[in-house]
Amino acid sequence: MRKKYYRKNVLITGGLGFLGSNLAHELVDLGARVTVLDCLLPGHGANYFNLAGISQRVKVVKRDIRDKGLARYLKGQHFIFHFAGHTSHVDSMKDPFLDIDINCRGNAVFLEAVRAACPKARIIYCGTRAQYGRLDYQRVDEKHAFKPVDVYGASKSTGEMLFFVYQRAYGLRVSSLRLTNAYGPRHQMESAKFGIFNWFIRLAMDNSPLPIYGKGEQKRDFLYVDDVVRAFLLLGAKEKTVGEAYNLGCGKAISFRKMVELVQKEAGGVIEYRAWPKERKMIETGDFLANYGKFAKATGWQPRMPLEQGIRWTVDYYRANKKHYW
Amino acid sequence: MRKKYYRKNVLITGGLGFLGSNLAHELVDLGARVTVLDCLLPGHGANYFNLAGISQRVKVVKRDIRDKGLARYLKGQHFIFHFAGHTSHVDSMKDPFLDIDINCRGNAVFLEAVRAACPKARIIYCGTRAQYGRLDYQRVDEKHAFKPVDVYGASKSTGEMLFFVYQRAYGLRVSSLRLTNAYGPRHQMESAKFGIFNWFIRLAMDNSPLPIYGKGEQKRDFLYVDDVVRAFLLLGAKEKTVGEAYNLGCGKAISFRKMVELVQKEAGGVIEYRAWPKERKMIETGDFLANYGKFAKATGWQPRMPLEQGIRWTVDYYRANKKHYW
Repeated sequence: MRKKYYRKNVLITGGLGFLGSNLAHELVDLGARVTVLDCLLPGHGANYFNLAGISQRVKVVKRDIRDKGLARYLKGQHFIFHFAGHTSHVDSMKDPFLDIDINCRGNAVFLEAVRAACPKARIIYCGTRAQYGRLDYQRVDEKHAFKPVDVYGASKSTGEMLFFVYQRAYGLRVSSLRLTNAYGPRHQMESAKFGIFNWFIRLAMDNSPLPIYGKGEQKRDFLYVDDVVRAFLLLGAKEKTVGEAYNLGCGKAISFRKMVELVQKEAGGVIEYRAWPKERKMIETGDFLANYGKFAKATGWQPRMPLEQGIRWTVDYYRANKKHYW
Repeated sequence: MRKKYYRKNVLITGGLGFLGSNLAHELVDLGARVTVLDCLLPGHGANYFNLAGISQRVKVVKRDIRDKGLARYLKGQHFIFHFAGHTSHVDSMKDPFLDIDINCRGNAVFLEAVRAACPKARIIYCGTRAQYGRLDYQRVDEKHAFKPVDVYGASKSTGEMLFFVYQRAYGLRVSSLRLTNAYGPRHQMESAKFGIFNWFIRLAMDNSPLPIYGKGEQKRDFLYVDDVVRAFLLLGAKEKTVGEAYNLGCGKAISFRKMVELVQKEAGGVIEYRAWPKERKMIETGDFLANYGKFAKATGWQPRMPLEQGIRWTVDYYRANKKHYW
């Protein structure tokens, strides 16, 4: 891995956010020359503290993927990890236009810039399980149709389709990784909107009520951020994956309730059972378990972090750095 | 069918175009109160002559689906047949932003208007085979993933996903019909961009060269417009199809070359074999044959028009009305 990224120019869009910043830390360790592009969309998880410890070795550009004139930051990049986007299920229903403007039009603006400035860069698109919506079958594979239940799931699907259109038409070297629920350090902690797992860790650390809607029996597939970061690095390094999309998951279904119980055990809080709020129920997807066999076969990746340990490390991180997050 | 549509208020978006205007004729015959909404996007096939013979019985509104303030035209509609959109493969690659603005943002604007003004209307979205792109398997069914090869295919997929998001979240009564290549009277004849079959009919009638790229062996699934119109009417009438997407096709693969030969036999022209132009090759999808079994089962629909007869009727129409088309 070191050989692949050492002294390479790597652009991370959304690099002040959860996944992007964790990847930046790993890439700096590998000796890459990292540029972080982030527009600091209010409330969206961008946090300069996420680069604490590497900020001197990372170039930060405060720009939006929708800006024309990104070319000068794109020129010479060998790798692009593309996390920038609008990422809230609930907000995408409240304001579909912002979501569509960023994830549909914005991705086209960005692709045109990439095509002009660095058409040979290796590009990894960050996809999401939300593209599938409610599953027709569990252990979902990449052949499952897109049936998103919210505007966000639709617009992220659009983004991925556009990246692959440009790959086929113009030879961009694109792969996509469709993520399940990720959790861990450097996730924003001010809202439940961008990841429920971390939000419950905050609630537990605040010794607040931990609300479970219904019985909490819906199954989820959780991944610790280090496992996700390693997946992105492996994917970027595998040229033969160009043109392909891959699911990522831990392969183990765990109920939402079980997750909350583990969080409570580690950090505190009081579990409360509540009725589903209407705006949540209407975009709830039910059980979700990913089949990541295609990705494991292509890259050898396997998840490593046991859930209990991942929760512990996450809680430890926020205990040490709480003031930077809430 | 008459019972279902008689004296009902029906809105047809894109109703001055090929499919919309043919549907308008049929609906007027069935006694519906038809409103046509069309923004007459330059070069896009809208043609007032398409309503010749029914123009006194149809209300025409020159508005764009992207306009806010459509509510007054939507109020009281019982049915909406939604054909409006950007529909050129090639143009979508030349100007992805217009395509995305109409088919992504525009559909969201339209859906918000529908949700506010006529949330109980029965709505049929006009989808396309372009959503599938190059097929993983022939006799494609509706479970096939979206793998569009051009921006148009991506944005039409987005439009459909958004309609179904609004169906699930807000109870809109949406179904979608994904069309194969349609041909017949009232299609624009000024460009090859919106349908190659009709374009070859024009070339043949002009006694011009009929260019076949490569060997013309790619298989296509052609449908005469009357078969398509009947499918839309049947789908609108079947309430149990809400939330479902259906493929439409003729079930018979015919090579592109065979189609051209039949057109030549009926109308003239000179077949010429040529190399694939680059901008066509990169968005060429290869063979396409649809499985319309799900739709046949739901509605009883079957294609009726033999290809030779469909070509003859189309040629007859344009012989009689040529001056209105080119």
